[in-house]
Amino acid sequence: MPSMKHRSVLTAFGLGLVTALTALPAAAQYRNAEAAIKYRQSAMALQGNHMGRLGAMIKGDVPFDAKVAAENIEITAVLNRLQFAAFVDGSDKGNTKAKPEIWTEKDKFNAAVAKSQEDVLKLAAAGKTGNFDQIKAAAGAVGQSCKACHDTYKKE
Amino acid sequence: MPSMKHRSVLTAFGLGLVTALTALPAAAQYRNAEAAIKYRQSAMALQGNHMGRLGAMIKGDVPFDAKVAAENIEITAVLNRLQFAAFVDGSDKGNTKAKPEIWTEKDKFNAAVAKSQEDVLKLAAAGKTGNFDQIKAAAGAVGQSCKACHDTYKKE
Repeated sequence: MPSMKHRSVLTAFGLGLVTALTALPAAAQYRNAEAAIKYRQSAMALQGNHMGRLGAMIKGDVPFDAKVAAENIEITAVLNRLQFAAFVDGSDKGNTKAKPEIWTEKDKFNAAVAKSQEDVLKLAAAGKTGNFDQIKAAAGAVGQSCKACHDTYKKE
Repeated sequence: MPSMKHRSVLTAFGLGLVTALTALPAAAQYRNAEAAIKYRQSAMALQGNHMGRLGAMIKGDVPFDAKVAAENIEITAVLNRLQFAAFVDGSDKGNTKAKPEIWTEKDKFNAAVAKSQEDVLKLAAAGKTGNFDQIKAAAGAVGQSCKACHDTYKKE
């Protein structure tokens, strides 16, 4: 188990900062649509890397290290929170695989985003326990919500 | 001035996590050279966005908000720390503008990286003060160390 001090640091990061970021204005943070597209693609690429590092531990390809797992989860949580703001109006065209339904069915998309963020927050909580089985289960749920969203909203 | 509570959250994030990340193994975190290249390009793209948000406040294009400034600085600090690990051996070829000197003159490159990280840590400290002039000065230094590294190590 991580010490209380360590947990408090993680809480500050995982919840304090992630919550704070929701206070950022959602729009007008990107020079143009192309910049918004590049932003979300970059955030997803980094997430893919850090979830991959976690996945390698879960699959047993590399030894499980609770601290490293928690770090990778925290980075994922921040990026996950940041990226969805970049689906701004007008960024449905260009170098993107995003389907138009993201903008034409915003309520459904926002529900999928909320599900993803909820699952990532559960993963962040699991990361703080340092418990392999909890992390594995929570990471599986995150993987499923990533996949569900990609299946629905990402072009082949 | 931010409250002590807010400062403590920032400290946990800006120093606690950033320091912790140095404990991550530097190599073997990328599937292959192409993945390492994509990783560092993604991290730099996100940094460019968040430094741009800060820059807009410094230039007066948007009103200065100490909390938003600090958030953008913190994200930059994490990405800055992460990205340099991705200049792994073998990632000098491919879809990259990285010059070969990064790998042939590693000591010089590492010194430039250290300078960049030092300047970003100073910016993180300035962000915690909430003081516009301190943030402006520290951001200027970061911009200069970014530019110096790009001038030397990035192809046109």
